Amino acid sequence: MNNTQGPNTFNATLASVSTFPGLNTMGLSIARVDFGVGGVVPTHVHPRASELVYVAEGTISAGFVDTNNVLFARTLQRGDLIIIPRGLLHYLYNVGSEPAIAFVVYNSQEAGLQLLGPSLFGSEIPTPVLASSLSLNESTIAALRGIYAPSS
Amino acid sequence: MNNTQGPNTFNATLASVSTFPGLNTMGLSIARVDFGVGGVVPTHVHPRASELVYVAEGTISAGFVDTNNVLFARTLQRGDLIIIPRGLLHYLYNVGSEPAIAFVVYNSQEAGLQLLGPSLFGSEIPTPVLASSLSLNESTIAALRGIYAPSS
Amino acid sequence: MNNTQGPNTFNATLASVSTFPGLNTMGLSIARVDFGVGGVVPTHVHPRASELVYVAEGTISAGFVDTNNVLFARTLQRGDLIIIPRGLLHYLYNVGSEPAIAFVVYNSQEAGLQLLGPSLFGSEIPTPVLASSLSLNESTIAALRGIYAPSS
Amino acid sequence: MNNTQGPNTFNATLASVSTFPGLNTMGLSIARVDFGVGGVVPTHVHPRASELVYVAEGTISAGFVDTNNVLFARTLQRGDLIIIPRGLLHYLYNVGSEPAIAFVVYNSQEAGLQLLGPSLFGSEIPTPVLASSLSLNESTIAALRGIYAPSS
Amino acid sequence: MNNTQGPNTFNATLASVSTFPGLNTMGLSIARVDFGVGGVVPTHVHPRASELVYVAEGTISAGFVDTNNVLFARTLQRGDLIIIPRGLLHYLYNVGSEPAIAFVVYNSQEAGLQLLGPSLFGSEIPTPVLASSLSLNESTIAALRGIYAPSS
Amino acid sequence: MNNTQGPNTFNATLASVSTFPGLNTMGLSIARVDFGVGGVVPTHVHPRASELVYVAEGTISAGFVDTNNVLFARTLQRGDLIIIPRGLLHYLYNVGSEPAIAFVVYNSQEAGLQLLGPSLFGSEIPTPVLASSLSLNESTIAALRGIYAPSS
Repeated sequence: MNNTQGPNTFNATLASVSTFPGLNTMGLSIARVDFGVGGVVPTHVHPRASELVYVAEGTISAGFVDTNNVLFARTLQRGDLIIIPRGLLHYLYNVGSEPAIAFVVYNSQEAGLQLLGPSLFGSEIPTPVLASSLSLNESTIAALRGIYAPSS
Repeated sequence: MNNTQGPNTFNATLASVSTFPGLNTMGLSIARVDFGVGGVVPTHVHPRASELVYVAEGTISAGFVDTNNVLFARTLQRGDLIIIPRGLLHYLYNVGSEPAIAFVVYNSQEAGLQLLGPSLFGSEIPTPVLASSLSLNESTIAALRGIYAPSS
Repeated sequence: MNNTQGPNTFNATLASVSTFPGLNTMGLSIARVDFGVGGVVPTHVHPRASELVYVAEGTISAGFVDTNNVLFARTLQRGDLIIIPRGLLHYLYNVGSEPAIAFVVYNSQEAGLQLLGPSLFGSEIPTPVLASSLSLNESTIAALRGIYAPSS
Repeated sequence: MNNTQGPNTFNATLASVSTFPGLNTMGLSIARVDFGVGGVVPTHVHPRASELVYVAEGTISAGFVDTNNVLFARTLQRGDLIIIPRGLLHYLYNVGSEPAIAFVVYNSQEAGLQLLGPSLFGSEIPTPVLASSLSLNESTIAALRGIYAPSS
Repeated sequence: MNNTQGPNTFNATLASVSTFPGLNTMGLSIARVDFGVGGVVPTHVHPRASELVYVAEGTISAGFVDTNNVLFARTLQRGDLIIIPRGLLHYLYNVGSEPAIAFVVYNSQEAGLQLLGPSLFGSEIPTPVLASSLSLNESTIAALRGIYAPSS
Repeated sequence: MNNTQGPNTFNATLASVSTFPGLNTMGLSIARVDFGVGGVVPTHVHPRASELVYVAEGTISAGFVDTNNVLFARTLQRGDLIIIPRGLLHYLYNVGSEPAIAFVVYNSQEAGLQLLGPSLFGSEIPTPVLASSLSLNESTIAALRGIYAPSS
C-alpha cells in the first residue's frame, strides 16, 4: 500500500478528521510518508497547522522558508526531528541512497494542504496574475497548465 | 508616498505590531494597497491570519485557491468585500481602467507574508525540489533565481 | 445610501456574519461609518472584539476609557489609525469642518454593540439601579426613558 | 473588612492576578460582594470575562442587557446562580430586607471593570460626546462630573 | 439536600452546562461542596479546567501534585483561596472540628471529573496494567474492584 | 539508547520544548516509546494535551478511561492509531510476543505527565486522603510509599 514506484516519488497516507472521525476536537492529525530514492514532497503549505517531522528510516532533507525568504533546511537521519511553523512553505526530500519513511504530525484535526504546482497551475488563476507572481511567460504558463490541469 | 509608477505595480503600506506597537495583543492589523492600472498583488500566503479585503476605489479582481485547488474569484467594485481564509494562496488584480485602492485587514497583529516569487526563487530551496514542485526545468529555475535573488 | 442629514449624525454600515455569511469562522468583520459635520458615534462597547479605526476622510477624534477611568483620545486625520482594546467604552467624533468617513474592523465575526443610551434607558433596568449607577434623579431617568424607549 | 455602612452600599473584595499572583495563566478570578439593605453594584462592564454570580446570603436581583437592549433579570435566593456573558452591561441589586452576600467568578485572571458613572463622568470624555451619548444637557453633565471627578 | 451523614463524607452539587444550559459557551461552571467532619474529596483530576477553591465555612486542607510529584498543600480558613492548575491530581480534606463548605469554580462549562478510585478500579483496566501502575498485587486489585465496581 | 532490559519495562524518549527549544509556541511535541515483551506504560495523565498514539512495531493494547469510568481500549498493530482525549487516565501495554515501538504526539509543547504511582505515593499526600481515595489501608499505603518514595 505504501509502495513507491521509482525516482522522485512519494506516497503519503493521512489520518485526519475526515478519514478518522475520532480526531474531532482533538487538535491532532498524522501522516506517514514513504519516499523512493530521490523522492520529493514538493513545496507546499498547510494553512491551519504547525508540523512536526520525524524520520523513521533513511535520510531526508527538510526545509522551510521564513517570511524573510530565508531557507531553514536540515538533513535528518533516522530519529531526527524538525518543526515547521504553521502556514510556511516547506518541502521534504529523500537525499539518501535508500528509500525513506517519515511521520509527520499536525496540531490540527485537518491541517489542509496546498501543493504549489496543482494550486497554481491546476486552478484557474488568471494568466496575468501567474505571470506577475512568478515572472513566467505565457507559453511557460500554458505548458504548466497542461501538466497540472485536473483530468475531467 | 503611495505612488504607483506604471502598469503591473502596486504599493502596500502595512500597520502591524512591528511598526505600530499599540497593536500588541489586539489581534488586528491593516494595510492600504494602491494599484496602478493593471497592477497585481502577486499570489501569496499569510501564514497566521484570515484577511478581509475592502475596495475603496476602482475595480479589483480578488481570488483565492482552496485546498481542492479550486479558485474562488470575485470582481469587486468600490465598497465590495471578500474574505480570504487563513493560510490560502490568493491575489489581488486591478482589472479596471483606473488606479485602485483596497484596504486589507488581518485578525493577527502580525499576519506574515510569503510572496511566492521571492519565497521560491529568492531563497535557497534546492533546484531538484523546485523542479519537482513546479515542473520547471533547471534553466528556467536558474533564470528565475536571477530575477528574485536578493541583492547583497 | 450613506447620506448623513445634519449635525450630530452618523451612518454605519456593518458587514458581520449575520449579513455576510462568508465571515463565518473567519474572525473578522468591518463597518463603514459616515459622519456629518459634528457627527458623533456615541459612547459604546463591543463585548466580543478589539476594534481598529482607520480614517479615510476628514478629521475624527477617537477616544476610549481604560479600566482606571483614564481617557485615551487622539485626533485622527485621513490615513491615521487607532486601536480600541476589546470591551472598553469608546466613541468617535467628527471634529473637522467637513463630513468624514472611517472604516472600523473587528477581530470577531460578530463583535456586538451596546450603545449606552439605548442599553441603559431603552431597556428595563430598574430605576433605583440607574439612579445609583449614574447619580441621576428619577425625573431625569423618566425623561431619558422617554427618549430611548423602543417604539412598539 | 466587609462592612457595609448603610443603604445603597456594597463592598467588593477581589482576588485577581494583580493581588493573587498564583492566578497567572489560570483563567480564573473571584470576588466576594457584601451588600447592605438596598445595596446596588451599579451598572458596569467586564471587558475580558464572562461572570458567574452565586448568591450566598440574601435576595439579589441580577440583570444584564443584551445587544438588542433587552434586559434579562432574575431574583436570586441563597444558592441561586446567574451567568453574565462577557462584555455586557449588568448590575446586582439587593432587593431583600437583609444584608446579602454574593460570590462572583470570572473566566479571566484579570476581568477588568468599567463602572459607568466613573468611566463616563470621571474621565475626560468631551461634553458633546457625553451629551450625544446619553441625551443629557451640559448642566447635568457638569453636575455629574462634579460627583464622579477623581479627587487629586 | 446538602446533608453529610458522617465522618469521611462529602456532598458536591455541580452546576455545569449539562445541568444549567445557560453556561453554554460561557467558559465557567461551579460546585458547592459540603464536608462532614473528616470529610475528604478523594484525589481526582479535571481533564478540561483549572479550579479555584474558596472556603466558605470551616478549615480545609487542599493539595495538588505537580508534574515533578511534589505536593503543594495549604490549610485554608473561611475566606481563603487556592488555585489548582488544570489536569493535575488534587484533593480537599476537612481537617477542622466542624463541618465545612467550599465553593469551587472551573474555567470550563464542563470540567469533567476522574475520581481515582472508580476510574481505576471501577473500569476494566487490565489487571497487569493496574499492578504495574500502582505496584499492587492481584489479590489487592481484586478486592478493590469489588469495592469500586459499578452496581448493575 | 532505547534498550529495554526485561519484562514489564519500557523506555520513553521525549522531545518537548524543554529539550528541543524550537518547539516553542508550535503546539506540538513527540515521544518514542520502546517496549520489552509485556512492557507497560503505567496509567497516567497528561494535564495539558491530547495524545495520538501510532504503533510502529509490535502489538500494543492502548486504553483510556472516560469521565463515566468506562474503559475504551484497542489492540493496535503496526500502523494503527488511537487518540487519547486530553486529561484522561490512559495506559499502553505490549500484549504481543515481541518488543514493540510506539510514537506518541501531543498538541502542546509541554504536555506534562503524572504517572499515578509516583504522583500518589512518591508525593506527600496525607495518608487519610490516600486511604479515602483508593480504599487502601494504612499498612498498604506505607508499603507503597516505600516503593515510590524519591531517593534523596
